Amino acid sequence: MRGSEGFYHYRQYSAVELAATRPLEDVWRLLIDGALPSTPAERAAFNDEVRPLRALPPILVSVLPAIASASEPMNGLRTALSLAAAERGCRPLYDLDHAARRADALLMAAVTPTILTALYRLRHDQQPVPPRDDLDYAANYLWMLTGKEPEPRHADAIKHYLISTIDHGFNASTFTARVIASTGADMGACVVGAIGALSGPLHGGAPSRALDLLDEIGSLDRARPVVTAKVVNGERIMGFGHAVYTTEDPRSAMLKEVAQSLGGPLVELATQVEQTVVAVLADLKPGRHLNANVEFYAGVVMSLCGVPPEMFTPTFASSRAIGWTANVIEQARDLKIIRPSARYVGPPPPQPVPPLL
Amino acid sequence: MRGSEGFYHYRQYSAVELAATRPLEDVWRLLIDGALPSTPAERAAFNDEVRPLRALPPILVSVLPAIASASEPMNGLRTALSLAAAERGCRPLYDLDHAARRADALLMAAVTPTILTALYRLRHDQQPVPPRDDLDYAANYLWMLTGKEPEPRHADAIKHYLISTIDHGFNASTFTARVIASTGADMGACVVGAIGALSGPLHGGAPSRALDLLDEIGSLDRARPVVTAKVVNGERIMGFGHAVYTTEDPRSAMLKEVAQSLGGPLVELATQVEQTVVAVLADLKPGRHLNANVEFYAGVVMSLCGVPPEMFTPTFASSRAIGWTANVIEQARDLKIIRPSARYVGPPPPQPVPPLL
Repeated sequence: MRGSEGFYHYRQYSAVELAATRPLEDVWRLLIDGALPSTPAERAAFNDEVRPLRALPPILVSVLPAIASASEPMNGLRTALSLAAAERGCRPLYDLDHAARRADALLMAAVTPTILTALYRLRHDQQPVPPRDDLDYAANYLWMLTGKEPEPRHADAIKHYLISTIDHGFNASTFTARVIASTGADMGACVVGAIGALSGPLHGGAPSRALDLLDEIGSLDRARPVVTAKVVNGERIMGFGHAVYTTEDPRSAMLKEVAQSLGGPLVELATQVEQTVVAVLADLKPGRHLNANVEFYAGVVMSLCGVPPEMFTPTFASSRAIGWTANVIEQARDLKIIRPSARYVGPPPPQPVPPLL
Repeated sequence: MRGSEGFYHYRQYSAVELAATRPLEDVWRLLIDGALPSTPAERAAFNDEVRPLRALPPILVSVLPAIASASEPMNGLRTALSLAAAERGCRPLYDLDHAARRADALLMAAVTPTILTALYRLRHDQQPVPPRDDLDYAANYLWMLTGKEPEPRHADAIKHYLISTIDHGFNASTFTARVIASTGADMGACVVGAIGALSGPLHGGAPSRALDLLDEIGSLDRARPVVTAKVVNGERIMGFGHAVYTTEDPRSAMLKEVAQSLGGPLVELATQVEQTVVAVLADLKPGRHLNANVEFYAGVVMSLCGVPPEMFTPTFASSRAIGWTANVIEQARDLKIIRPSARYVGPPPPQPVPPLL
């Protein structure tokens, strides 16, 4: 990622261009194997490899209902993937060659959407919907979530979102996966740790909050007064601003286009709110350039595709699992433990250790 | 930790002195609440608080056998603690005050030894042994593991080991817990990530390998030839050397004393092997000072106390869970996401994105 240029790439390919022209599996292959498929046969070979891996792991068929009853989807994914990795016998990266690490990477990323959608359905008293081999990643995601054949424009829209969130520099979850990988632990340990980091509200936990803002505003005429009140009160406007991008977030611009191609009142409201936030900030906080970030239109797109807000962060986790596993493979190429040095800056004890009580 | 001085402290109290004079619960309180108990009533109050938290969480009573059948103890702990945290309703640190974070920290650390010993026993077709409120942490650990009342000298020896491993700077697992905490995720997410890091062979995965060296040598007369052959062949001698301590590891010196107080042929062999390694290295690699690290005598002490080698790393995890949770509470005091910046150094694509296949 090159934040100051507003350029966002996977192995130097524009992520926006990839999202517009490629199925998600092509980008998955790019990250894991280092190259886009260059022939239909190469594409088919990768698809044939990953689609059977989507099936719910056997141990989860019996245990997932108990996990679902106790857990929200992100925490349930953390538990279920941990168990699936153990059942699969994922061994330490330290003891594996590249082919075995790659196999574990593909499995972890392939079962993630199956587990997440099954958890969601079980929590809503619905049976999990098994994956369909005739559907690609994006269409199959909506299929497993809703049990309905998705409209092609929805499958295409969610594909744009999923591709745009596969990887993004050393974000906290990817960095977590790399620190764990640096100890030579297994792929499951790396992904499970990353899920935990992504579940934090400061990382993956905010996309539905941006939609909450739209819900709170409700109608076009309320955009200016609600936004103005928030800025005056010093409240944070969810869905605006990013630590890395000082220009417009290129993913946000893409998702805005995707949303507008789907159309409808929610998109109109979102467009109006975005313009209002930028205008109000220009009036009240001159010099403070906050653009809509990826979360803002992501929530809109997911909502239009039938993804419920509680599945926004899990949907993010589903595609990001591809990025995590690719980063882990890269980190494992030269295993060397990540261990920052620390200096104690707390108070000294008041005296020598007091005698035994 | 002050590596170049060979000094090792918890909040500036010598860890070695704490291990010699205090029950483990006192040190747990020091890390979580910032002070050793200074009266018997304070000690009793902390014990009364944490002992009931040891009980196996209800959901695990039914699910733990399935987890145990699929998982080695460290991976099983990863799954089981993840599920226990969800069942308990551990909420994001971001949304909690200090008291609620502390409650989650105590629970996660308190159930860890119960889960680990139950997993071990289930894997060996034995029923889990419930914790006993009349036993302190160390004695209860051996009780739950073996189902037998431990000899006081064994409970005291394992207490020395457990206290000496509670915390150790920003090691990879503690750093993992802090990165996850920095996103505002829940205590369970932090501990589960840390378990993954500790399961890596380069971090927590080596203590039983040091004992394997003693097994391989087998008898006093074989120490010199076996060690010499390894040094000549450039093999790594497990249990020697540490990234931080350039002098003798103070924990190793303490555990050596503990081992020698227990006595027996394994201790004699270990002492002989340690002297031999130092002497052989002085002869063959002059200037290379490698001392026995904490793993070397840790394996000996655990073995003498009846802890089987497959439980060495889990026993380490049991006490380190106290350190992880204390570090998480500290990290959460000022939540700010840890997100290193990265620069792409891979190859550029050979051309613009090829057209859609």
